[in-house]
Amino acid sequence: MTIHQLDMQKEKEILDELLDFQKKDLSFKSGHIIGSMCGLPHPIAQKAYQLFLATNLGDPNIFKGTREIEKRFIFFIQNLLNAPPSAGGLIVSGGTEGNITAMWVAKQLSHNQEIIIPASAHFSFQKIATLMDMKLKLIPLTKEFHMDASQVKKKISAGTAAIVGIAGSTDLGTIDQIEELSDICKDEHIFLHIDAAFGGFIIPFLKDAKHPSYPFDFSLEGVSSVSIDAHKMGYSAIPLGTIILREKEWIDEISVRSPCINSDTQAGILGTRSGGPVAAGYAVTRYLGMEGYADIVKHCLKTTKYTVSKIKELGLSLVMDPPLNVIAVRLKNPGKVVAILEKEGWKVNKIDHLSSIRIVCMPSITKEIIDEFMVKLQQACQQAGEL
Amino acid sequence: MTIHQLDMQKEKEILDELLDFQKKDLSFKSGHIIGSMCGLPHPIAQKAYQLFLATNLGDPNIFKGTREIEKRFIFFIQNLLNAPPSAGGLIVSGGTEGNITAMWVAKQLSHNQEIIIPASAHFSFQKIATLMDMKLKLIPLTKEFHMDASQVKKKISAGTAAIVGIAGSTDLGTIDQIEELSDICKDEHIFLHIDAAFGGFIIPFLKDAKHPSYPFDFSLEGVSSVSIDAHKMGYSAIPLGTIILREKEWIDEISVRSPCINSDTQAGILGTRSGGPVAAGYAVTRYLGMEGYADIVKHCLKTTKYTVSKIKELGLSLVMDPPLNVIAVRLKNPGKVVAILEKEGWKVNKIDHLSSIRIVCMPSITKEIIDEFMVKLQQACQQAGEL
Repeated sequence: MTIHQLDMQKEKEILDELLDFQKKDLSFKSGHIIGSMCGLPHPIAQKAYQLFLATNLGDPNIFKGTREIEKRFIFFIQNLLNAPPSAGGLIVSGGTEGNITAMWVAKQLSHNQEIIIPASAHFSFQKIATLMDMKLKLIPLTKEFHMDASQVKKKISAGTAAIVGIAGSTDLGTIDQIEELSDICKDEHIFLHIDAAFGGFIIPFLKDAKHPSYPFDFSLEGVSSVSIDAHKMGYSAIPLGTIILREKEWIDEISVRSPCINSDTQAGILGTRSGGPVAAGYAVTRYLGMEGYADIVKHCLKTTKYTVSKIKELGLSLVMDPPLNVIAVRLKNPGKVVAILEKEGWKVNKIDHLSSIRIVCMPSITKEIIDEFMVKLQQACQQAGEL
Repeated sequence: MTIHQLDMQKEKEILDELLDFQKKDLSFKSGHIIGSMCGLPHPIAQKAYQLFLATNLGDPNIFKGTREIEKRFIFFIQNLLNAPPSAGGLIVSGGTEGNITAMWVAKQLSHNQEIIIPASAHFSFQKIATLMDMKLKLIPLTKEFHMDASQVKKKISAGTAAIVGIAGSTDLGTIDQIEELSDICKDEHIFLHIDAAFGGFIIPFLKDAKHPSYPFDFSLEGVSSVSIDAHKMGYSAIPLGTIILREKEWIDEISVRSPCINSDTQAGILGTRSGGPVAAGYAVTRYLGMEGYADIVKHCLKTTKYTVSKIKELGLSLVMDPPLNVIAVRLKNPGKVVAILEKEGWKVNKIDHLSSIRIVCMPSITKEIIDEFMVKLQQACQQAGEL
């Protein structure tokens, strides 16, 4: 058999072809992707990922060492989110799977199909509606862009499966009034899921950064589940999210018998999945520790403050004072500005319904990048007639 | 900011810690994982994966080059599966997501909730039942371990959303009589999904290997969708599956508006996902081409034939003549043999309901590995009182 005798010349040609395609990408490394909630992973993440690429955590009894790493990573997340000893967690591919998984648990526990979500909920809930036959009841936002908690109670019915609060919204980085939601859900015995895909790795460190802080996690008794993405502010590599459930027994609700692999049951949505991202995420948490994350959050908030001042200096206005490191710049025609910036090789995100563009100060975004960007933003806004 | 100044000593300690955990894993590289449907990826897969790790195909307009690679990979798969020009495809994380996605499309198109599946269907359909509120109607198997097509017609009702056929079953590698299912579905206008997660990269090459071949793909007019995993017999890295739909418009049925990313809609289940596995899969298909895959299939079938002869020489019997490269060895107490082999560092899979163990001759399994394994298998069977 010759299948393992590598033709090095052929390999080089193919990898060169791939790199040619890559020239058409923007890269996180360049710093020019300035509107995404993903970013460049920490260097140790890439190395750890590679070492564990050829492992399958969908069949954990073959990969007992990698499974131990996974357990330790989940434990780190439980600790970060103040989960009680009764809690359990599952690795997911990201925020969308985290939300689907939480709604699956809530549906199984309640035998209900209605979910109450804020108007600011991530678009993955639109998928949940048709995929899972769930009915979405949308709650309007207050002037402060929070889910209007006074409206929530009115929407609760005998068919309610869950209420969802957001900790770090996609558009603005807002955090819903989760303390109030927790009280409601505790009283009414309703499953409360917190989508902290973006905020989960920031909010626990706000106090350290002397920034206004908000309770959002299992320290609130009414919170049933929290999803959090390590490939967003956790500084790790795609795909790595975690869903933590207040009671580990709830995992049984979404487990099936798995006779053909080396364990009796499999929990969660996906089957085969690499241990690479999990090892990467664990390596990053080990490298940074709580102090490292606190430093990153300080850095991101400092860059945010700097960016806000520069935007105001340009004469542009914001949708709101950023509660986290997400900045929404109000524009008359955001699409036009986005298009001009894209031609210049910069990518910000367009938030049409807020007539704005989104800038996210991720860990790898520096003041130097912002300075470079501001020149481009000013030019683009002048060209588009915004300034 | 010091977050980018790497402490090399600390990095080394953490990577060493990870490698210590890894010692508790079995590895695909060792050849001792001999019952899994995943295996060691082709060397070029690892390299390509690494180059594209920090890309996000969930936001394809930022990564236009990587998106082009994805399109080319999907086109390769469409070609492999004889898909018509009207077809379209989506990358998924593997067979489970492929099946969920297909059932989502079928549910949306039919507004029905019942799916007719063979008793041999993968356990992911059990997830689909509770996740998606689908009702499973199980069809018993014939003596040849095929879905009994004569029973299928009887189960069809006004509530049928889809019929599922298997091309390369999890337990035995069997291929259902998909020609008959296709005729039924064409007549009755029912969505027919083929789960070719395992068989999709083998069955197209059986003729070349002078092995009995079976129609299973879009060359049959009644086939609506096929899911196929490149991380199984496609010799690529986890996670990489593809779902091909006969009509690309059906993708709209599972698309939602995605205002916060740089494209108007997002199709499929997951959101953020790395371009790494896609680039890896494309590199492997470019490296091997159709001829390379044909050679791999010949190799796997040859190893299978060799293994079968050695098993029979030991005095053990098989559940059936392997239709592909999946061998089920009939034993009185498979659990006991699996446990003894595990202690010796070898991993085969237990198929309790067939009172057997499963061996899969993946591309990286060689005659030399089989020779080594046979010694262990004989000893284990003697110790367990099977021989």
